[in-house]
Amino acid sequence: MGDCETRQGAYQDSLMNLESLRKSLVRQEDTIIFSLIERSNYPINSLLYDRQSSASFFHCFLKESEAVHAKAGRYTSLEENAFFPDDLPPPLLPPPKQEPALHPSGACININEKILDLYMKTLLPLIAAKGDDGNYAATAANDLACLQALSRRIHFGKFVAEVKFRDAPQDYTPAIRAKDREALMKLLTFESVEEMIKKRVEKKAMVFGQDVQLQENESTGKYKVKPEVVSQLYGEWVMPLTKIVQVEYLLRRLD
Amino acid sequence: MGDCETRQGAYQDSLMNLESLRKSLVRQEDTIIFSLIERSNYPINSLLYDRQSSASFFHCFLKESEAVHAKAGRYTSLEENAFFPDDLPPPLLPPPKQEPALHPSGACININEKILDLYMKTLLPLIAAKGDDGNYAATAANDLACLQALSRRIHFGKFVAEVKFRDAPQDYTPAIRAKDREALMKLLTFESVEEMIKKRVEKKAMVFGQDVQLQENESTGKYKVKPEVVSQLYGEWVMPLTKIVQVEYLLRRLD
Repeated sequence: MGDCETRQGAYQDSLMNLESLRKSLVRQEDTIIFSLIERSNYPINSLLYDRQSSASFFHCFLKESEAVHAKAGRYTSLEENAFFPDDLPPPLLPPPKQEPALHPSGACININEKILDLYMKTLLPLIAAKGDDGNYAATAANDLACLQALSRRIHFGKFVAEVKFRDAPQDYTPAIRAKDREALMKLLTFESVEEMIKKRVEKKAMVFGQDVQLQENESTGKYKVKPEVVSQLYGEWVMPLTKIVQVEYLLRRLD
Repeated sequence: MGDCETRQGAYQDSLMNLESLRKSLVRQEDTIIFSLIERSNYPINSLLYDRQSSASFFHCFLKESEAVHAKAGRYTSLEENAFFPDDLPPPLLPPPKQEPALHPSGACININEKILDLYMKTLLPLIAAKGDDGNYAATAANDLACLQALSRRIHFGKFVAEVKFRDAPQDYTPAIRAKDREALMKLLTFESVEEMIKKRVEKKAMVFGQDVQLQENESTGKYKVKPEVVSQLYGEWVMPLTKIVQVEYLLRRLD
């Protein structure tokens, strides 16, 4: 997990609260939907992902891009998790001024392998048309943007879990001590909130993915990414994976 | 101008026409506005652009990112122009299947230096708040997306000029032979079309930059990037620079 140890720094309190996290999560929905719409500009372009002798072109693109980002200090932020966290070059720029606000044991949780697998096998065929137009670099750059946006959103579960724990440690401590994943999952699940989020991202996909015309006119019902795919993405993957991050974080919270 | 010579290939006809170019330009408006909205998430973060001993951190980020993109074949596409075209590594992936559709002399026009300067000095202060939040890598990645989107849009003038010339060579030939930039600029200027584009991108900035709420409610009049800035960007820079590219292209069209 690379330089995770070195970036924990002092484990301090911060002004972080559920309302500020919620605001960021809502804003991140826009980023995720923009990135999906941009990726949908290109067909699958599967040559990019074919395994050559060892790794695919995309694997190299992602790894090399992360190295460039690492030098600019991306992974000194606790909000960012690399897909290939080993052997990243050190940052050349000073780290963000934010105070670390995560418990050291949970800060290093990284489920990007799962996110990458899901993106490739399940999400990509839902947002990109079949075919190959040869625009591999633009395609890879858009994949990178999608993956970073999804990874950031899902790993935000660490901050959400931290704040929830601080607000009511008595609610979580028994289940943590009992290592009871199921009980923790129950404590973290609010179905009505999840339904509302699914509806909101579906609406956002309609607003951001429409063909904007100068004249006010009837909706064509055509969107760049199917709104129901975005709702499904959130309902089946983004929110469940965020909760898995939360559960794993809480399980380490008393270490 | 790097490998510009090698990517001209056979100068052939294609199915390119004004309608397909127009469609692409309209779609590129969305990409540009999404990228500006994403950049506006972060403050200026000027440390990124401060010149150190020689180059700024951002200069290095841009150069290194372009190297990664070059390996994935970005600059084998005539639609793409690098900001640092010298010493780019060769592509590891096959070039796009599109047939080259530009006259070889004009294909190499590259005004990215002007675009970069404009972006840094004029556009950035209009879309990013003052301050520094330390998120340099995310900021630089968003700058890269903005710059690539603007560069692509502006250099699209080459394709527009090529199609316009093919459709009516007799209209352009006298001014080209006379090297009359002013006359060419006049031939390429349609004020009513430009006004319509300015209005459309302003509307897009409102649609894409709004806070989407689940409940239908009054517009708050607050947008992530000021719609009038996007209109100004198009009116003062994007369209004039595209026309400069067109004029320069036409001047070489009979070489």
